[in-house]
Amino acid sequence: MRFLTAILVLFAVLARPAVTDAGEPTDAAAAANAAVLQALPFSDRRDLADAQRGLIAPVLNDGVATGPSDRPAWDRSSAVLAFLGLPLGVGRVWAADAESAGPLPAWNDGAAKAAIVAFVSKVTKEGGADFVPPAERIAVFDNDGTLWPEQPMYFQLAFALDRIKSMVARHPEWRDTQPFKAALEGDMRQLAASGTHGLLELVMATHAGQTTDEFDRDVRDWLATARHPTFQRPYTGLVYQPMLELLAYLRANGFKTYIVSGGGIDFMRPWVEEVYGIPPEQVVGSSIKATFEVRDGTPVVVKLPEIDFIDDGPGKPVGIHKFIGRRPIAAFGNSDGDFQMLEWTTAGHGPRLGVYVHHTDAEREWAYDRTSAFGKLDRGLDEAGSRGWTVVSIKDDWKRVFVFEAGGTMKHGRPAPAAE
Amino acid sequence: MRFLTAILVLFAVLARPAVTDAGEPTDAAAAANAAVLQALPFSDRRDLADAQRGLIAPVLNDGVATGPSDRPAWDRSSAVLAFLGLPLGVGRVWAADAESAGPLPAWNDGAAKAAIVAFVSKVTKEGGADFVPPAERIAVFDNDGTLWPEQPMYFQLAFALDRIKSMVARHPEWRDTQPFKAALEGDMRQLAASGTHGLLELVMATHAGQTTDEFDRDVRDWLATARHPTFQRPYTGLVYQPMLELLAYLRANGFKTYIVSGGGIDFMRPWVEEVYGIPPEQVVGSSIKATFEVRDGTPVVVKLPEIDFIDDGPGKPVGIHKFIGRRPIAAFGNSDGDFQMLEWTTAGHGPRLGVYVHHTDAEREWAYDRTSAFGKLDRGLDEAGSRGWTVVSIKDDWKRVFVFEAGGTMKHGRPAPAAE
Repeated sequence: MRFLTAILVLFAVLARPAVTDAGEPTDAAAAANAAVLQALPFSDRRDLADAQRGLIAPVLNDGVATGPSDRPAWDRSSAVLAFLGLPLGVGRVWAADAESAGPLPAWNDGAAKAAIVAFVSKVTKEGGADFVPPAERIAVFDNDGTLWPEQPMYFQLAFALDRIKSMVARHPEWRDTQPFKAALEGDMRQLAASGTHGLLELVMATHAGQTTDEFDRDVRDWLATARHPTFQRPYTGLVYQPMLELLAYLRANGFKTYIVSGGGIDFMRPWVEEVYGIPPEQVVGSSIKATFEVRDGTPVVVKLPEIDFIDDGPGKPVGIHKFIGRRPIAAFGNSDGDFQMLEWTTAGHGPRLGVYVHHTDAEREWAYDRTSAFGKLDRGLDEAGSRGWTVVSIKDDWKRVFVFEAGGTMKHGRPAPAAE
Repeated sequence: MRFLTAILVLFAVLARPAVTDAGEPTDAAAAANAAVLQALPFSDRRDLADAQRGLIAPVLNDGVATGPSDRPAWDRSSAVLAFLGLPLGVGRVWAADAESAGPLPAWNDGAAKAAIVAFVSKVTKEGGADFVPPAERIAVFDNDGTLWPEQPMYFQLAFALDRIKSMVARHPEWRDTQPFKAALEGDMRQLAASGTHGLLELVMATHAGQTTDEFDRDVRDWLATARHPTFQRPYTGLVYQPMLELLAYLRANGFKTYIVSGGGIDFMRPWVEEVYGIPPEQVVGSSIKATFEVRDGTPVVVKLPEIDFIDDGPGKPVGIHKFIGRRPIAAFGNSDGDFQMLEWTTAGHGPRLGVYVHHTDAEREWAYDRTSAFGKLDRGLDEAGSRGWTVVSIKDDWKRVFVFEAGGTMKHGRPAPAAE
């Protein structure tokens, strides 16, 4: 198990075992983030003030996670088309609009956008040699670093640190016991030294007995109050506008869009429909085991302190087979952890699209690749060209980076005028 | 691990490890079936000739599994509506047609049909107190005994026995070694005596190194030639007409239909889209582990000789959480292995539907419940009433049982006029 994978999986599953004193999540998150920032071995430590200088939009003050009852029926073509400012019409293809203000307005015209549009045009052209029936149009997206940022640390890591902090009052011994001490201090190097056994110890200590419903609520509660340490916005307000457009563009062209992430599946499912328009059943991720039991007459699914599946690196094609059961025709990632997913996807018969998002914009976002602690992209950069994969440069290919930059046209991935 | 579960999971994953001499699958299947029939402890051993007397339709001579390229885009509302002979229109509700020739023509009018139609009417009525948004309309179906038969044995067991027979030439020692000897002889009692360890031994011996693509092809090849021992038809031609109508009815009303089966997920995925209109990504089932590797430059996913997940009994709510990530509002099963799935589904907030198919028709199908070797229904019968679950009696509630009885109006779950 690679260290980063282990860390990711560990924190994918941490949470307080029941509803306890909530404390002050925002402060706690800020403190944890600061601590981790000090400890992380960033090779490209950037001036975070620079990032904020480029951000001019008003802060989104509304909450983040809402209950299931008011989730938008996002997959409806009408919503997607309204979002894109185009007339209603199911299954319309925008090939003709490719290089103008068409389907991907936040993308600059260039090789990357052209490759994506050409691919979609090709596979949707009925009667064409490369036509792919809608049922086969599966597109998979990594999450961290592909749909939203992964700096200064995986967002889920911030969640996990808050959870550990909220539990330590009932476990004062953790302050002097590894690996809890390292987790509390955000000392990633020390945590690594505790190895897989230490990580599993953390999982078992913090997770035994929590139900899936409780975990779901914890994630929603945290997202509603936590703020990103540098942007000072809700985490779910930091998604990439060009990728939201890409998701909508693919769906409008008959694609089924999936997340295939190394992150915890139960951490993503509570909010991805609201934010990305991807329903929870189209999320593949890492997981711990669970069991069914009846408690006082109420059936519950309880999370167990045991790793079930690690959806990272070579685990991604396995996760795709396990959850989806057919090979995607398009895959989007940003790190070496996505390499095998792109490899598996593009090795299939017929037209295929493999895309890497390359973080090249230190002004508007972050610039990192071969040596980053999170989202390392090394082998992928070396081999993308020879494998025919498209590399998207955030600096050059994205007109806008974040959804909030337009100041009001989007709200949590939904088109404000249509959905409000 | 219950014995039947173990048997099911074992055989869910057996297959020859590569393309070998195919032998004569039909003969082999017939022989295996005969052997197992002798060995099985049926308490209600019925006159199989009786079943055939009731079947008057012509034999379907066309093949069963076709390639992915010509899979129908079955989920499209237009196809569903065309199948039901109704005008096009997404999201239309048939409440008004409930008791006439409306959406479920193979169902007799009665309490079961009325309960189903009333439920669908209720959750789709916009503005109503029980309205459920389309995104939340998840319906889960057991497969064996619910969508197709499970007598005289699980159909997948016939597949597995054929596979073991096809491998024995290269493993002559199996003829005298347990648990292989028992598997070859169809001796279920002896196989049970070998325990979980023996079953895993079989899995490891027969599965090491097979790729998911090879397994997929094996399943398709087998289905194309194998015949059910008593009906002498392709197994996929034996699906229940009333359940096909129910699947289509639910989908036309905005439901997403899933299979949640104790059977092997990789055994079902190659054919469920063709037969049920359920895409492979909406199948939950038992599985063995897999790993990703690159062989001579070609990436493959290879099945491993290790149990990954058992989707039966209390495993079904866990599988639903794992694969779907939200609680269904309707669940359909036929055995005690579905009990927890119905329990989990109907314990949710708001309107819920739990349905048991009760095999009561010894003339047209089989009659069995509390003591059957396959599909035992005991606790479920006791508690269905007090839990508010609907019990469908095949004898009383189904006008037609099998899809072939209409002789041509349906072909492998597709409407013949629209799709041919």
